Amino acid sequence: MLKEAVYHEAHGSYAYPVSPTTLRITLRAARGDLRQVKVVYWDRYQGSGELVAVMELAAMDELFAYYQADLELSTTRFAYVFLLDDGRSQVFYTEKGFYADPPPYSQFQYPYIALQDLWEPPQWAQGAVIYQIFPERFANGDPTNDPLEVEPWNSQPTATGQRGGDLRGIIQHLDHLIELGIDAIYLTPIFESPSNHKYDTTDYYKIDPHFGTLDEVKELVGLCHQHGIKVIFDAVFNHCGMGFFAFQDVLAKGKQSRFAQWFNVWKWPIETDPPSYETFATGIASMPKLMTSNPEVRKYLLDVGRYWIEAADIDGWRLDVCNEIDHDFWREFRQVVKQAKPEALIVGEIWHEASDWLRGDQFDSVMNYSLYYACVDFFARRRIRAESFANRLATVQVNHTHPVNLSLFNLLGSHDTARFLTECGEQKARHRLAAAFVLTYEGAPMIYYGDEVGMVGETDPDCRRGMIWDQKEQDQETLEWYKRLIALRKERPVLRTGRCRVFLADSAQNLLGYARFSNEDQVLVVINNSDSPREIEPASLPWPLSAPGQVNDLLTGRAILSREPLVLPPESVVILG
Amino acid sequence: MLKEAVYHEAHGSYAYPVSPTTLRITLRAARGDLRQVKVVYWDRYQGSGELVAVMELAAMDELFAYYQADLELSTTRFAYVFLLDDGRSQVFYTEKGFYADPPPYSQFQYPYIALQDLWEPPQWAQGAVIYQIFPERFANGDPTNDPLEVEPWNSQPTATGQRGGDLRGIIQHLDHLIELGIDAIYLTPIFESPSNHKYDTTDYYKIDPHFGTLDEVKELVGLCHQHGIKVIFDAVFNHCGMGFFAFQDVLAKGKQSRFAQWFNVWKWPIETDPPSYETFATGIASMPKLMTSNPEVRKYLLDVGRYWIEAADIDGWRLDVCNEIDHDFWREFRQVVKQAKPEALIVGEIWHEASDWLRGDQFDSVMNYSLYYACVDFFARRRIRAESFANRLATVQVNHTHPVNLSLFNLLGSHDTARFLTECGEQKARHRLAAAFVLTYEGAPMIYYGDEVGMVGETDPDCRRGMIWDQKEQDQETLEWYKRLIALRKERPVLRTGRCRVFLADSAQNLLGYARFSNEDQVLVVINNSDSPREIEPASLPWPLSAPGQVNDLLTGRAILSREPLVLPPESVVILG
Repeated sequence: MLKEAVYHEAHGSYAYPVSPTTLRITLRAARGDLRQVKVVYWDRYQGSGELVAVMELAAMDELFAYYQADLELSTTRFAYVFLLDDGRSQVFYTEKGFYADPPPYSQFQYPYIALQDLWEPPQWAQGAVIYQIFPERFANGDPTNDPLEVEPWNSQPTATGQRGGDLRGIIQHLDHLIELGIDAIYLTPIFESPSNHKYDTTDYYKIDPHFGTLDEVKELVGLCHQHGIKVIFDAVFNHCGMGFFAFQDVLAKGKQSRFAQWFNVWKWPIETDPPSYETFATGIASMPKLMTSNPEVRKYLLDVGRYWIEAADIDGWRLDVCNEIDHDFWREFRQVVKQAKPEALIVGEIWHEASDWLRGDQFDSVMNYSLYYACVDFFARRRIRAESFANRLATVQVNHTHPVNLSLFNLLGSHDTARFLTECGEQKARHRLAAAFVLTYEGAPMIYYGDEVGMVGETDPDCRRGMIWDQKEQDQETLEWYKRLIALRKERPVLRTGRCRVFLADSAQNLLGYARFSNEDQVLVVINNSDSPREIEPASLPWPLSAPGQVNDLLTGRAILSREPLVLPPESVVILG
Repeated sequence: MLKEAVYHEAHGSYAYPVSPTTLRITLRAARGDLRQVKVVYWDRYQGSGELVAVMELAAMDELFAYYQADLELSTTRFAYVFLLDDGRSQVFYTEKGFYADPPPYSQFQYPYIALQDLWEPPQWAQGAVIYQIFPERFANGDPTNDPLEVEPWNSQPTATGQRGGDLRGIIQHLDHLIELGIDAIYLTPIFESPSNHKYDTTDYYKIDPHFGTLDEVKELVGLCHQHGIKVIFDAVFNHCGMGFFAFQDVLAKGKQSRFAQWFNVWKWPIETDPPSYETFATGIASMPKLMTSNPEVRKYLLDVGRYWIEAADIDGWRLDVCNEIDHDFWREFRQVVKQAKPEALIVGEIWHEASDWLRGDQFDSVMNYSLYYACVDFFARRRIRAESFANRLATVQVNHTHPVNLSLFNLLGSHDTARFLTECGEQKARHRLAAAFVLTYEGAPMIYYGDEVGMVGETDPDCRRGMIWDQKEQDQETLEWYKRLIALRKERPVLRTGRCRVFLADSAQNLLGYARFSNEDQVLVVINNSDSPREIEPASLPWPLSAPGQVNDLLTGRAILSREPLVLPPESVVILG
């Protein structure tokens, strides 16, 4: 037995309550090492009357296998040890190590399920389809509020050029989003700012006049809500823009400014070229870092967080560069936001492993860039094959609770990456396969505006082209593909909130298969990410194909017969249920 | 290379700031597997200009070796990967796995050292010597406030008997504590309650009349503060006593009581025998569990937390059964307590692995029962030998940051265990060796009242005997031993706050050696936990013996010569510095 590979901790994604009396626990071991894993558990005040659960293999990545079980105990005071069997020997794994006969107080403990610790992201966000809009480039609905100089809509984007997109444009094109079937819009920043991206805020309380007015925001949110669509704003709290009143005051009055402590100025008199103060990234004078250690700054930003929920009834915040602000700020932010709207969603922009922010006290979700890179490598570039892709998915999955996994923003691109279709070398089939994946896999798939109509573009600024509205220019086939898959998520809620287990990861054939399942329903997805047709024996699939004749190909409606091999054309997906 | 053993996470004890620009990181690998570990790191916005640090072997337990390095970066935005070398091959270990050439965005990231995340327990608590008093049994200073029926002071304790100990008794015997040299007193509960242990509170705002008055508490705390001694109270917030006003109201008015929701009553009308409501442990009617999910209960208890800091100027709280209350309650409790007194200490009663409570948002410390059990097994019972003991110490150590390790209450017993001397079969030398260990090892040694004068007793209630005040009955030799070691901690602050590394763990000879070190000073401790004399070659010891003639045996004052073997008698300790 490879003891060094065995791991459990009695918190985080390894031990969390899924009901007031049920604890879900995970054990990690070396892949292929163990034959059976059991949990022996009991109430921590009652040593006798031990209960035993056999753990199920829930996931595998490159090195490890992950076993899971749900433990039920009405008193909710769990003490437990694992019994590991590798076919040659059995040993107990405890908090204090491995024993044939565990000594006193060596057991793991999840001492009590307190109701407040039974947290999950808002129900609406679990499995929701998110649509990201970069407002300056989505649609110009009101030419009267355009900036002075406007580039042609279809010209090549530059770093600083503007072209007049606005809130009225989004309102006018809401039918596109309704028909697409999305559940929520995430808007990149819309507060007053001199740039086209508006990540350098001038006024946190004012809609950028080139984008529109408070009334138009209210109109947009109201219309969205009428159609069951949530609206998420972008909070840029790590830094402000050069025009922010407090920074302007510091520029004008120097050290005497009553806002001098809102920024980290390391040399007076303050200079801007190069900046003599801390900024976002390195020396970006137009983005002075805000000192959230200063209680005044803290209060100012927390008030902003509450204000827009109250003023515009928005449904959540996406947090820019949130990992460079202290955890404590985000704990307070969560309290303020959830008090204003308990069902508000809080999503961090974190490109790396983010479980430290996803414990229930800070964020509900993050932008899932780990999955993004895996999709680029597997679908777009074919740098990795099915098993490696499945391993990378599993590594992300086991780091989070199931409700968090359902809420991760699974993106194929954003305003900060090249367009996915461009990553695919403009091979549409590859893009569609990846879209089918995120729209059937565990998580909240995020569509970057225009991906659904086949837009292309290299990384920033090229990925921020004007949205294609001319239907003749749009890739209608891709658009229909997105619509069909999103509709399928609504028809079969298990695709939205079901658990997910990979059952097939065949690198030789580049086939990936996974099941979405709940107590009520089950759906299987098989993806052929190769240039050759592949055949699968229905008998080799896990349920539901054990019930022949009752299973359909959900994209074609065709019944699946258990005696016929399932044929997958090159670069295709089949969804069975 | 045993890849399954390799582990790092970019948070918790594996990555934490130790200065505004320094990140301490730890990597785990299989014991004995790697020849060299390096960290390659850089500012996450500046890919070029890479820095490299060689990691040091900081600790080893049964299966693993732990490597550590302090990374310095003025921008504090760390991106890093590990370069592992097992003598046969080199490979990079990243957040996404093992690579010869890491792909984009695979690096670990500690994105920013925010000043607020640079937390540590109060300075005074790091390495402090704590003295636990069970007031009912420490000293009866005021017979006029005695309970009606009082047992003889030296009689055998029973579960319910009382014998008149009180605050006046503590005040009268403060000279004993001052001479002993302790830094803080932890009092088990002193609020009104019918029991001798007072873990069933009747009134959280009233000192138990048999213990004394508010004025006497103030007098005690004032006197302690005059002598630089801190005072910690015991907060029993998981449950109250039967006489608590809210529970009495529920008993009287049933479901109509306005406090009905303060408790979890599962059957009305309420019954007490057996209880028809949730209690501490199983069916203990006299300890109804308080519903901290109820905002009223929450506010009530938080107010208590603040009140005693303001009213009596206490220096912290020890939290009873704290792991059965939700994390969120403790986050708010921390805010309330630290607002009232920033230097207040918060110590949880958690007998199992507690890192989930020690992230900076909840507790500063816990009762270190893991170390207690290891000491019982090694020193008292000799069930394990030196290497196993060192392994268990290391497993605890690597789970916490260094400032937290310095603050853990390292106890050899409490009101909830048998006396350590009793565990030793009353072999005084074993007890003294264990005392020398906790008083020189990393942490805040906690002395259970009377251990220092050789008191004995089986587990509760026998461990709660009346304190021995008759000097002829006291073990003066043990008392002097404690005083000498505590004085040594004051003479050499490195014993209090220095880092700690085990350099010798020889099971055959049962020798344990560890170094306490800082930038300014260093001390070596070698313990012979066997019944035979042992010899050590000074040359085999790590510094400071490289400077012969300049190193003394700190207990005897004798100079150590590098050419003479160091002789350790049976069951002895030598402290070199």
